[in-house]
Amino acid sequence: MGSLTVPHIVPTPAEDANALKKAFHGWGTDEKTLIRILGHRNANQRRNIRHTYFQLYNESLIDRLSSELSGDFGKAIILWAYDPCERDAKLAREALENSKKSVEHLKIIVEMSCASSPDHLVGVRQAYTCLFHCSLEEDIASNVSPSSLAKLLVAVVSSYRYDRDEVDSAIANSEATKLHEAIKTKQLDDDHVNWILSTRNFYQLRETFACYKTTYGNLIAQDILSCGNGKFESVLKVIICCLDSPEKHFAEVIRDSIVGFGTDEDSLTRAIVSRAEIDLMKVREEYQNLYKTSLDDAVVGDTSGDYEDFLMTLLGARN
Amino acid sequence: MGSLTVPHIVPTPAEDANALKKAFHGWGTDEKTLIRILGHRNANQRRNIRHTYFQLYNESLIDRLSSELSGDFGKAIILWAYDPCERDAKLAREALENSKKSVEHLKIIVEMSCASSPDHLVGVRQAYTCLFHCSLEEDIASNVSPSSLAKLLVAVVSSYRYDRDEVDSAIANSEATKLHEAIKTKQLDDDHVNWILSTRNFYQLRETFACYKTTYGNLIAQDILSCGNGKFESVLKVIICCLDSPEKHFAEVIRDSIVGFGTDEDSLTRAIVSRAEIDLMKVREEYQNLYKTSLDDAVVGDTSGDYEDFLMTLLGARN
Repeated sequence: MGSLTVPHIVPTPAEDANALKKAFHGWGTDEKTLIRILGHRNANQRRNIRHTYFQLYNESLIDRLSSELSGDFGKAIILWAYDPCERDAKLAREALENSKKSVEHLKIIVEMSCASSPDHLVGVRQAYTCLFHCSLEEDIASNVSPSSLAKLLVAVVSSYRYDRDEVDSAIANSEATKLHEAIKTKQLDDDHVNWILSTRNFYQLRETFACYKTTYGNLIAQDILSCGNGKFESVLKVIICCLDSPEKHFAEVIRDSIVGFGTDEDSLTRAIVSRAEIDLMKVREEYQNLYKTSLDDAVVGDTSGDYEDFLMTLLGARN
Repeated sequence: MGSLTVPHIVPTPAEDANALKKAFHGWGTDEKTLIRILGHRNANQRRNIRHTYFQLYNESLIDRLSSELSGDFGKAIILWAYDPCERDAKLAREALENSKKSVEHLKIIVEMSCASSPDHLVGVRQAYTCLFHCSLEEDIASNVSPSSLAKLLVAVVSSYRYDRDEVDSAIANSEATKLHEAIKTKQLDDDHVNWILSTRNFYQLRETFACYKTTYGNLIAQDILSCGNGKFESVLKVIICCLDSPEKHFAEVIRDSIVGFGTDEDSLTRAIVSRAEIDLMKVREEYQNLYKTSLDDAVVGDTSGDYEDFLMTLLGARN
C-alpha cells in the first residue's frame, strides 16, 4: 500500500499547471506550492500536468523545475515529476556509469527488476531504448564485470514474471535443493540459479526461499555470503532480498542512508520517491518492526527545510 | 510492407458483426462472407469486431467460428481472428508441447522472438502469462533440452531490442570476430553469443553478419552447421536467419511447406497469417527471387476451396 495522499477533489491539470507557473514567477520559487501540488498527485495526474503545462506554456515542466531548483529538494521533486518508467531508465543509466566506482549502485537496477511489477519493468526497458538508443541489456553486458554478474543482471532485467499468486510446492522444494547445491558447491553462477531467479513468479520464489530456510536452517541470503563477499555475491544477495520482501529491502535502504556519519540523500530520496505509490506504508511498518523506531522520526531527524517537507508529504505525514 | 487490403470505406464494427452473425445463420456457413469481411480487416478492426460481436450476441466470435468451421480453412481464419499477441502465445504453447516430437516446432518461438517487433514480443509474453498462468520463459526452461538450447531460447524470448537503425561498425567487427571464435572452437553456447543475439538491435546484427561474411568468406548460418547438426545448431541457424532477413526466412517456410509430397498446411497458414500485416509483400518478392516462380501460383497450386480463397485474400491477390 502506497503512502501518497491525493485530495478528494483534484484540480484540473490546467489549474495545477497554472498554479505551478505562478510558483515559478518572480524572484525565488514558491517551493511550498510545488510540494502542495506535485506531492499530492499520482503518476497519471502528474503526466497530465506535464502535458498540459507544455501545451499552455511551450516549456517542459521538468526543464523548468531543473532551472529553478537545486540541492536535495530539487533532485527529489524532479525525480518525482518524471514518468516512473522514464525515471527508472535514467536511474539505471546513472547506476551503470557509477557502478565502475562501486558495485553498490547496481542495487538500483536490481530494485527495478526484482521489486517492481513486470509491466513497470517492461516500461523501463522501453523508456531506456527511447532515451539512450540501445537496450538496457546491452549496456549491462558491456559495462558490468565479471561476466557472471552481467549475465545474472541481464537475466533479471529481462524477466517478465507471471504476476499472480500461483505456487507449486513440489517446484519450491526441488528449486530450494538446486539453490542449496549451487551454494554448497560454490557455483552460484549456474544457469539454473539464473533461471529460477529470473523466470519464476514472486510468490513461487518466496515459497522456495521459505523451503530453503525450513530444510537447511539458514536464510538463503546468509548462506550466499558464505560463498564469498565479492561483487557477484553482494548483488545476488540484493536480488534475493528484493524478490523475498521489497518492503524489508527498502526499510534497510532507508536505514542505511540515515545511520552513521552524514546522510546518503540520493538513496533516501530514491527509496521514498520510488515506493510512495507502491508500498511505502508497508516499508514504514517494516522499519518499525526492524528498528523499533519510527521511519517518520528518522526522516525528520536527518533532513530539513523543503527537502524534509517534501519527503514527509510523500510519506503521507503532511498535508 | 504487408499484403492485407482494407476497403476505403470500412463498415462499422456493428455492421460487420451483424453480417458475420447472418453468415453463421441457418444450415451451413456462408464462408465467402467470412472471408470478405475478416480477410479485409486489420488487427485493430478485428478486435473491434470481436468486442462488438460479443456485446451484441453474448457469444465469443472465436468460439462461434470454432463451432462452425473445421479443416485448414477453419484453422486459418480462427488464427487470423485472434489478437496477434494472443495468437502467438497460443502458438508458442503448442510449439513447446510439440517440440518433444520434433525440434522443428521451436522455429515458431524463434520467429516471434527474432522476426517481430520488440513490442509485439512483449505483448506475446504478457498474453502468455494471462492465458497459461506462468511465464513463457519458465515453460521454455522446463520443456526444452539440452539446457544450452533452453538458455539460448530464454535469452531471445526475453529480448527487448532497440528498434531503430543504429549501427556501430567497430562493434559489428568485434562481434563478428567473437562469433567466429565461438564457431571455430565449437563453443556456440558461449554467453557472449547469447548476448550478441539477444541484446543487439536488428540493424546492428545485420551489419555484424555482413562483416562476418566479408571477413571469413562464408555466411555465418552455413558455418554454424559445420559445428554439428544437432538441435542446438539447427535452432541457432533459424535465429540467425530470422534476425538477418525475416522475409527470406518466411519465403523458405512457405517453400518448404509446399514442395515435396503433400502440403504442410500449418506452416503455410502460420507464415501467411502472421506476416500479412507486416511484410508479406517483401516475402513475395523474396520468394520470386529465390525460386524464380510466383508465391501466388505456388499457393494456388497447393490449396483449394475456401482455404485457397482465404490465403489468396490475405496475400492481397483477391477481393
